[in-house]
Amino acid sequence: MSRQRHPLDPLFMPRSIAVIGASRHPGKIGYTIVRNLLESGYKGRVYPVNPSAKEILGLKAYPSVLDIPDEVDMAVIAVPVGLVNRVAREAGEKGVKVLVVITAGFSEVGNKEAEEELVRIARQYGMRVLGPNIFGIAYTPIGMNATFGPSRIREGNIAFITQSGALGIALMGWTAMNELGMSAVVSVGNMADIDVVELSEWLADDPHTRVIAIYLEGLKPGTGKRFMERMREVTRKKPVIVIKAGRTRRGAAAVASHTGSLAGADTLYSAAFKQSGILRANTVEEMFDWARAFATQPLPRGRNTVIITNGGGVGVLATDAAETHGVPLLQPDEDLVARFRRVMPWFGSPKNPVDLSGQAGVDNYVGALRVAYESDKVDNIIVLYCQTAVLDPIDLAKAITDVAEEYRDKQKPLLVAMVGGIETFEAMKILNRKNIPAYPSPERAVSSLAAMLRYTWYREKTTRGTRTD
Amino acid sequence: MSRQRHPLDPLFMPRSIAVIGASRHPGKIGYTIVRNLLESGYKGRVYPVNPSAKEILGLKAYPSVLDIPDEVDMAVIAVPVGLVNRVAREAGEKGVKVLVVITAGFSEVGNKEAEEELVRIARQYGMRVLGPNIFGIAYTPIGMNATFGPSRIREGNIAFITQSGALGIALMGWTAMNELGMSAVVSVGNMADIDVVELSEWLADDPHTRVIAIYLEGLKPGTGKRFMERMREVTRKKPVIVIKAGRTRRGAAAVASHTGSLAGADTLYSAAFKQSGILRANTVEEMFDWARAFATQPLPRGRNTVIITNGGGVGVLATDAAETHGVPLLQPDEDLVARFRRVMPWFGSPKNPVDLSGQAGVDNYVGALRVAYESDKVDNIIVLYCQTAVLDPIDLAKAITDVAEEYRDKQKPLLVAMVGGIETFEAMKILNRKNIPAYPSPERAVSSLAAMLRYTWYREKTTRGTRTD
Repeated sequence: MSRQRHPLDPLFMPRSIAVIGASRHPGKIGYTIVRNLLESGYKGRVYPVNPSAKEILGLKAYPSVLDIPDEVDMAVIAVPVGLVNRVAREAGEKGVKVLVVITAGFSEVGNKEAEEELVRIARQYGMRVLGPNIFGIAYTPIGMNATFGPSRIREGNIAFITQSGALGIALMGWTAMNELGMSAVVSVGNMADIDVVELSEWLADDPHTRVIAIYLEGLKPGTGKRFMERMREVTRKKPVIVIKAGRTRRGAAAVASHTGSLAGADTLYSAAFKQSGILRANTVEEMFDWARAFATQPLPRGRNTVIITNGGGVGVLATDAAETHGVPLLQPDEDLVARFRRVMPWFGSPKNPVDLSGQAGVDNYVGALRVAYESDKVDNIIVLYCQTAVLDPIDLAKAITDVAEEYRDKQKPLLVAMVGGIETFEAMKILNRKNIPAYPSPERAVSSLAAMLRYTWYREKTTRGTRTD
Repeated sequence: MSRQRHPLDPLFMPRSIAVIGASRHPGKIGYTIVRNLLESGYKGRVYPVNPSAKEILGLKAYPSVLDIPDEVDMAVIAVPVGLVNRVAREAGEKGVKVLVVITAGFSEVGNKEAEEELVRIARQYGMRVLGPNIFGIAYTPIGMNATFGPSRIREGNIAFITQSGALGIALMGWTAMNELGMSAVVSVGNMADIDVVELSEWLADDPHTRVIAIYLEGLKPGTGKRFMERMREVTRKKPVIVIKAGRTRRGAAAVASHTGSLAGADTLYSAAFKQSGILRANTVEEMFDWARAFATQPLPRGRNTVIITNGGGVGVLATDAAETHGVPLLQPDEDLVARFRRVMPWFGSPKNPVDLSGQAGVDNYVGALRVAYESDKVDNIIVLYCQTAVLDPIDLAKAITDVAEEYRDKQKPLLVAMVGGIETFEAMKILNRKNIPAYPSPERAVSSLAAMLRYTWYREKTTRGTRTD
C-alpha cells in the first residue's frame, strides 16, 4: 500500500498477530480465532499466546506476548475478563499497535472501571483498542479472519460494521450463503476507543471497499455532532447504509438492556443520517440488498430506467415499486420502441416495462439488453424473469453475464430479479457470483436501484464542483 | 365429500378430465398438462383428446370429446384460439360440466367476440368456464395438477388464486422451493365467467384450505360492490390476503396493457379491502409470509406476545417491528420473570425479549418455550435464533417441533426466525415441513404474527355473537 500510514492500518493490515488466550481445544473461542486465521489465508505471522501450551494448531505457542521474538502489530485478546488488563499492559510493553479485545464483561454489564482502565493502558502505550465485547475483525483483501465466527467469508467490496455480536456472526454465515462479497467485517462492541466513525473513515479510503453497511444500536452521549460532521465526509467518498436498531420506544428500551447504549430519540438519528447522506434501511435484508447493488454496479449516470421482463405481472409489480420508490421509468420514443419491437415476438409489448412475453427466449433477452445498453437515453436497466418452460434460468443467467461484460464500458447499472423454483435460485447464484446483483423479487431489485439513485442525487447535490472521482 | 354439490365442485373435484388438445410432444402445453395429471396422483380418469393420435403418455386418445365412452366432468382446452368454441360446443353436447380454457388470444388482445361466444356456448349447455388465457388449476387434496406449470406442488392449506399467468407459474415453483404447502392453485386469466369471488366462496367452505392468497390486477367494471359484499362473507370464515398490482398511476397503466383490466383508483380498492376484512400485502413475499402463518398456526386467542432469543440484536429488531406493526409485547410479571430466569444462564435477561444469551443451548430454548406455553398470560410465541457455535440450528429445529407438538392443545401461535448460514436454511426447511412457520429475518416473523392479530381482531369485531367456529 502506497498511502500514508493511518492509525488504523495495523487493525486492517497487521503484519503479525498475537492471539492472547489461544486454545488447543476445538469449540473454544481462542481455538477458533487461530484456526480462522490459518484457514483464511492470512500471510502475516500468527503467534498463539498461552502459558500452558507448547503448540497450538501446529504453531509454536508463547507463554506471554513478551516472549514473542518478533514485532507484533496486533494482539487479539481472548482471556478471562480479570486478566485482560494485565495482558494489555504486556502488549503495550511489547510495542503492539492495536488490541482487539474479544473478552466480554466490561461496561455492558456495568463494569465501567475495567473498561476505563483498559483504555488508559492503551493510551499510555500508544495502542488503539477495538472492543471490548466483540467477535473480532476480518479483512479479506489480506485474507485475515481474526474472528470466532464462520471461517468462510466471500471476498468482495462490502464492509460491514456491527454493534451486535451475535447478529454479526450470524450474518457472516448469511452473507456467505447469499453470495454477498465482503471486504471487511468489524465487530465494534462497546466502542471503548475505536468507533464506527473512525472505521468508516478508514474504509472510505480503502480501495477494496465500495460500500459501508452498519448495524447500529446507538452512539455514545455527546458524540452525535461529531458523527454527523465526519460521516458527511465519508459519504462524499462512499455510500453508507445504516440499519438503526431501537428506533421505537420499546426497541430503545431493549437496546438499553442489550448494550447499554442510549438509543435516543429516533427523530434525532433520522435527522443526523439525512444530514450526513447516510442511507437508512428498514431491515437487515434491505441493507444487504442495497449493498449488493452498490458493491457491484457503477453509480447511475442518470435516472432513466428501463425494465425488461417476460411476465406482465412482475412488470406491474416492478412498476408499482418504481413509482413508490421514485425510480423514473423512461417513456421510450418511437425509435427506441421500434428497436425493442425488432427483438421480441409480435405479441410482446415494447413499452416500458418492455414485455418480451412468456414465449421469450435467450435471444429476446439478449436483443433487448443490447438495445438498452446501446441507447443513450437509457441510464439504468432492470431485468425481470418469471420461470417458464421455454427459457431455462441458468441459460439466461449466463447470457446476461456475457452481455453485461460486453457492455461494461457503458457504465450502466444492471439489476436482475427472478421468480421461480430451485433453478432460478441457482441462476441467481451464478449472477451474484459474477457481480450482477440478482434478487428473488422485482420489488427488491427496484428498491436497490432506488437507493443508488438517492445516493447519487445526494452526492451530486453536495459535491457540486468538488467531485473527487 | 358429504357437503351439498356446489357448481364449482366439478372444477376442484372432477371425477374425470378430458384434455382437448393433448399432445405427444414434450414441451407442448397439451403434453405437460397430461403429464402433470398423471404425475400428481390424480385418481380420476384422464382422456386425452387429439384427432391425430392414438395414444398419449400411455393413455388412449380420442379424436373428439364426443368419442369418450364415459362421463366427463371437466374439459381442459388447449387448442388454437380459432378452434376453442367448436370444441367447447362439443364438450357441451357431451355433458361436460366445467371448461378450463388454457388458450389465449381472447379479450386480452381485443378479441372480445370470441370470448363472449365462448360464454354463450357455456351458458347454453349449463357449463361453467375458468379462463380463458390461463395456465390451469391444481387442487392437491385429490392430487389434481391440471396446469402446464411445475409438476411438483407441496401439499398444504394455502389456496392461491392468480390473475397473472407467468407470475403464477413462477410462483408455483417458488412455493415448492420455499416449503409452502398449497391446497389449490388457480389461474383465473380473463375471468370470462368464474371469478375471484366465486372461487373464494368455494375455498371458504373447503376443509383443506385455511387461507386464501390472491394476486389481483383488477376487477371488472361494476363488480366492486358485489366483490365487497361477498368477500366480507368469505373473510368471516377464512383469512384472505391480497396483493393488488397496479396500485400506482404508472402501475395501473401497465396493468391496462397487460390484462386489459381497469386497475382503477387505488383508494377504492383499499377501502373495499378494508371493508371486507381482506388483508392487503405489499409484496408477493409478504403475502406468502403471512399465508404461511395462517396455514399452519391456530388463530391468536389474545395479543400478549413473548419473544425468546439468543441474540440481543435480533431481539431489538423484533421489538422495533412489534411496535411498528402493533404487536403488543407482554410485560412479564415477577412470577413469569422468575420462571424464565430459572431456564437461562445467569447473564441472560428474563425481560421480554427473553434473551437466553449467545451461550444458550437446546435446553434453554426448550425450557423457555415450556414456560411460555404453560403461562396463561402468554398468547403468542416468537422464537428467534442467531447461529452460534454452541447451538446447532438443526438440533434447535428438532427440539422446537417436539415441544410444539407436546403443547399443541394450548393453541398458541408459534413463529420462528433464524439468521445464519446454510445450516439455518436447512433448519428452517425442517420447521416449515413440520408446519412451524420459519422466516429468515425477525421482522418477517413479527409482520406475519401482526397479520394474524389484525385478522383475528377484525373477525371478532364483525362476528360478535355470531361466531361460526
